[in-house]
Formats: sequence, C-alpha cells, structure tokens
Amino acid sequence: MTDAVDTSAGERRRPPVRVVRVVGTGLVGASVALALRRLDDDALLPDPSPTALALSRDLGAGRVVDGGTEPDLEVVAAKPDVVADVVLAELAARPREVVTDVASVKAAPLRRLSDAGADLRRYVGGHPLAGRERSGAVAARADLFEGRPSDVVPTAARMRAAVELGRAVATALGARVSTMTAAEHDDAVAVVSHVPQVAASLVASRLREVPDRAVELAGQGVRDVTRIAASDPALWTQILSGNAAAVARVLHAVRADLDAVVTAVDALAAEAPGAPADGARAAVAGLVAAGNEGRARIPGKHGAAPTRYVPVPVLVPDRPGELARLLHDVGAAGVNLEDLHLEHSQGRPHAVAEIAVLPAAAAGLVRALVARGWTVHA
Amino acid sequence: MTDAVDTSAGERRRPPVRVVRVVGTGLVGASVALALRRLDDDALLPDPSPTALALSRDLGAGRVVDGGTEPDLEVVAAKPDVVADVVLAELAARPREVVTDVASVKAAPLRRLSDAGADLRRYVGGHPLAGRERSGAVAARADLFEGRPSDVVPTAARMRAAVELGRAVATALGARVSTMTAAEHDDAVAVVSHVPQVAASLVASRLREVPDRAVELAGQGVRDVTRIAASDPALWTQILSGNAAAVARVLHAVRADLDAVVTAVDALAAEAPGAPADGARAAVAGLVAAGNEGRARIPGKHGAAPTRYVPVPVLVPDRPGELARLLHDVGAAGVNLEDLHLEHSQGRPHAVAEIAVLPAAAAGLVRALVARGWTVHA
Repeated sequence: MTDAVDTSAGERRRPPVRVVRVVGTGLVGASVALALRRLDDDALLPDPSPTALALSRDLGAGRVVDGGTEPDLEVVAAKPDVVADVVLAELAARPREVVTDVASVKAAPLRRLSDAGADLRRYVGGHPLAGRERSGAVAARADLFEGRPSDVVPTAARMRAAVELGRAVATALGARVSTMTAAEHDDAVAVVSHVPQVAASLVASRLREVPDRAVELAGQGVRDVTRIAASDPALWTQILSGNAAAVARVLHAVRADLDAVVTAVDALAAEAPGAPADGARAAVAGLVAAGNEGRARIPGKHGAAPTRYVPVPVLVPDRPGELARLLHDVGAAGVNLEDLHLEHSQGRPHAVAEIAVLPAAAAGLVRALVARGWTVHA
Repeated sequence: MTDAVDTSAGERRRPPVRVVRVVGTGLVGASVALALRRLDDDALLPDPSPTALALSRDLGAGRVVDGGTEPDLEVVAAKPDVVADVVLAELAARPREVVTDVASVKAAPLRRLSDAGADLRRYVGGHPLAGRERSGAVAARADLFEGRPSDVVPTAARMRAAVELGRAVATALGARVSTMTAAEHDDAVAVVSHVPQVAASLVASRLREVPDRAVELAGQGVRDVTRIAASDPALWTQILSGNAAAVARVLHAVRADLDAVVTAVDALAAEAPGAPADGARAAVAGLVAAGNEGRARIPGKHGAAPTRYVPVPVLVPDRPGELARLLHDVGAAGVNLEDLHLEHSQGRPHAVAEIAVLPAAAAGLVRALVARGWTVHA
C-alpha cells in the first residue's frame, strides 16, 4: 500500500507554500492537515475547541500554533453556517495571507464576505468532496480526498495567484481539481448531492410506519436508495439552508415531475375496465426513461466516459476467505475488476458478488471462473 | 461452490409435486425451471414465443411439453399486465391443477380472477423477489432466488393445501418464505420497492440537463441513490400500473413531506439578514432525522435484527489482484466480512474498500491489516 500512495503522490505537486494554517479540526480540517503533513508541510492547528485541538494533535495532524510562524495559506475548515465569519476574521487579522475554505456551499458565504467588505483578492473558495457519513477528527484520514472531485471557486478577477494557491493545495490533497464559479458550484452540488440526500430521506421516512414484515422484504434497491439517509441531520440542515436557493430550484423541478407521476398513478388506480386512463402509462414510462438517460450521464471510473460494464454474478458462500478466493481467481484470470457489488439478503448463508468488468473481458472471465468451480451466471 | 449449494440445499424440502409446468420463459420463469430441475423435478415449458422456448430448453431449463404428462403444479411466469388472463385460462384448462404465479403485484390480478369467477381454491399467488435489472431467459440462474425474500399470498380460506404447495415450491427455490395477504403484499412492495424506484428516477432525471462539469462532481451518494434508475421503463410501467392504488397512497405521503421541505427551503432561500425563517430549519432537520429512523429499520444480513456494523476503510490500488490480496488478509485475520462497499471516484487509480465487520472484530482487524502494510483508517 505504501507503494500505491507513493505512485499517486508522483502526480502531486508540492504546493508553493511552506506553512499552512488549518482552522477547525473536524473530519475535513484534520484530514487536510494530515494530508499536508505527509508532504512535510508545517500545518498549524488552532481550533476553538481545546478537546478537538488536543485530539487532532495527538493524531499527528499538526503542531499547535505558537505565534512565532506566519502562515502563507490558511484553510478554514468550519461548518457552512459560520464559515464566512471565520474567513472574515482571519482575512482581517492577517493582511498578507491567502485564505481558502472547504465548505460544501459557496455562494452564500461569498455574498456575506462581499457585503462585509472582505478583501476578496485574498479569498478563494474550495470544496474537497469527502463523502463520509461520519464526522470528527477521529475519522480523519490523510487520504480522505484521494481521487475525489474537488472544486476551487474563484471569487474575483484579480486574484489569479490566490486561485493557483488553492488549486495547488487541492492537488496536494490528491484530489481531482476543477474550477468553477460559486453559482456554478452550488447549482451542481444541489443536483448531484443535496437533492439526492432529500430524496433518500423522503424514501427512508416512509419505512418508519410500515409493519416489520414489510421491511423484511427490503432488497438491494431500497438499501442503495436509502444508504445516505443515515447522514447527520444537523449538518444537512446547515448544508440545505446554506444552498437553499439552488436546492429550491431543483426541488421545484422534482415536485413538478412528482406531481405528473402522482396524477398518472391516481388515474391508473381509478381506471375502470374498458376505460383506460389516457396518457397515464406514457407519463410513467417517460419518467423511468428520463431516469435511464440521467443515470447514464454519471461518469465512469477515473473520469472516463460512462462505460457499460458487464456484471458477472457469482455465488459466494458466507465464510471467511471465500470472497478472497474468488477475487484471487479473478486476478489470476488477468481480468481487472472495475467494480464490485456484494448483494446480501435475508435468510441464506451466502451472497451474490456482482463483478463488473469491461465487456471484452466478460466471456473469458466466466470461462476461467467456471473452470475453477464457481457458479457463475452471465 | 458446489459444496455451498449442497449445504444450503440441505435446508430445502423437496416439494410434494412430481411435475411442475412453468408457463413463460423470461428471466423468472426460466430461473424457476432451472432451480426445480436441480431438484430433479420434471419441469415442462410451454411458452407462446417459439424462440424463447427453444432458448430456454437449450439452457437446460426443462423439456418441451409433449401432452403425455399431467402436471401437479403450474407456475405462471407472465408479466403483471397479462398474468391474470393466463392464470384464468390455465385454471380452466386443467381442472385438478394448483396454479401459482410470480408477478410483483398481487391484488389487481386477484381481483380480476375473482371477478371472472376463477376457482380460487386452486390459485395461490407468489412473488419471489429476484432483484435483477436484466431480463430474458439468457439471464436466468438456478440460484436467482437463493436467500431472497419470497411471498406466498393466500387467496381463499379453503385452500390450505394449495398454500402449502406454493410454500414448498418457494422453499425449494431457496427463498425465504413469508405469507401475507394480497393487500399486505402490495402495500409492502409499494414502500420497499416501487416508490424507491420512482424516487431514483426522479433524482436521475435531474441529471439530464446539467453541464458536464456538474455530473463530474457525482460521488458515491448519488450513484447509490440512482443505481436502480437504470431499470426497464416498460416493465416498471406495468408494475406501477399494476399496483397503482398502493403506490398512489405512498406517493401522496411522499409529496406531502416534499411539500413541507419545499416550503422550508423556499423560506430559507428568501431569508433576510436578521429575520430568520421560523421553523424552516426544524422542518429540514425533522425530515433527515425521520430518514435516519426509517433507514435503521432495514434488517441486517440473514434476517438478523439491524446491526450497526463498523466500517473499516482501506485504500486499495486499482491493479488486478490487490482486492483479493486485501480480502485474503481479512480472511487470514479470522474475521468475517459482513459487507463490502467499494468506492470509486474519478481521477485516481485506486479505490477505498469499506469492509463492514461486527464491532467486536474491528480493532483486531485494523491491527492485523496495518501489520500487513495496508493503509487503514478506522
């Protein structure tokens, strides 16, 4: 694994900063500090909470600021509802420093900074997408942003050098960096992150009041749809509040589509024999087809164009080592596993592993696995 | 793998029927026939489509009916919109046979059979949950129902023997059988299957019109929420039409919750400094918290009560054999993997494997993996 980290580290440039001050030592702040420490940056870690501060210092995420060193760049890792105030204070306190942040909403904090007369030439927004449901410094990892998308949000035309600093730090975290405006960022995350969270919560809420025997029928579909419904209500209230305008636009569009489906399904429920509900089936089919189209736009691995991988389903006994034996046999067949989906359901002591491979590799893999005694159906 | 099938087959009872006639050789029909053949049942396979019939015979799913053998039980594997007509015809044509079906909706076909004066003492509904997005006999597998939930839906008080036949066949398929009424079944699948499909399609639809750079930010959350949005529009139109009344009830509840969120987010978007939107944050937090509660009801593996497994995240280089090496090391540590979630994102040549284990096993596993050189953060 050390090899792997070194290999990918070859793609990283050391950021053109010597000392980075990280303010806020929750999951994201502590992970940023850990990642920069790995590159020998001297991360300083003031945090309003003495407990969190001591904890993240113990975790190796930096040394406590001692007042003697002036940072080149400051990363404010505060929650969306307070980030603008912290950035404002830090810009005012250190008149030469460039300040960036990591909040998952960008337009509202920027508006607040602008209204307060902050020096926007020295501010560049950032949003490394971490994608964990857990929080706190204990969950921090130096590799939290490896291979994740990350945005750098330029705020004013004159601060090209600040944008370059922000990009360099994001690249140093191992993230894949793209640059967009605050409005573009907030519109994008409303669609690909914030509204999916609302939808998952809406579906999961319906599971509260059904009988046990109904939830016992839950298969992989509802499990996938509701996985992120386990996320933190307090944090998501901040995120949805912080991006309310963009989220509202998308939710209104979702509600219009839902209204059309409800109208169609109501008509189908009221349908009398011999008097089919006009257009209702077309409305339902249209929604599912539109979903096909949208789903197909999600990019494949490594930023490649979406690929239709072929799933190769294999029955795996639920005993230690069986899945390893299967994947060893996949590797021995010279096939690269593009994705792996392990499907459990109730009542049986084994699972189905769906191994996704490139279409050209599927037939050979099936032959190789069958030859080694696996039950494969593809 | 043969061992595994034999082990679990030990839990199956051979059904008290000698000849099963399977009508319809799509994914489900051909898989039922394959599963019963494995138990030496003599499955007969008439199908209206000569091509599908020849294909499934070539796949070993039974012999073509020759008119000389009288079946004890008939499984009608037709799509939801025609299943009642086929069952009706088969009940009339063979006055001693018990007929079951596999359609994913139960109340509407039953109503139609009842209205047409069918002999309901010889009909028992069934619904083995297959959970595949693909279709057709080519995708059929004898183990399609292994460990899946399956319902048997009794239709009349006097047909206890027929219900027992249905249960016995479902058990023979390897499924975990529960018994409920048609209305209970349809209410349950509306919540755990049909409405999640609608929600996934609604979210995925929104991805159609956003810029490429927005979909490039897609992380694991939206991928999970929209996975089933890739499903077949024609089949889902039949399913949603066939269960319109129950789906409509759940969709109305979802729309009421969505209306509340839209009102709250609209208020937050319009919020002026110093004039916070009353109750809007509580409404948003309430939805996410309700989602937490619903999500927590989904049962764990093997029908056990929901367990909070501990995720152990490990960085895995994207090369053939690396995941196998990791899982070999997990097995060598004597730890049973409860679930595995492989997380890809764009732009980096490795993935994060989140290995879910029982809480008591986590600390030992982390020590063992770190000792073998893996990068683990737990």
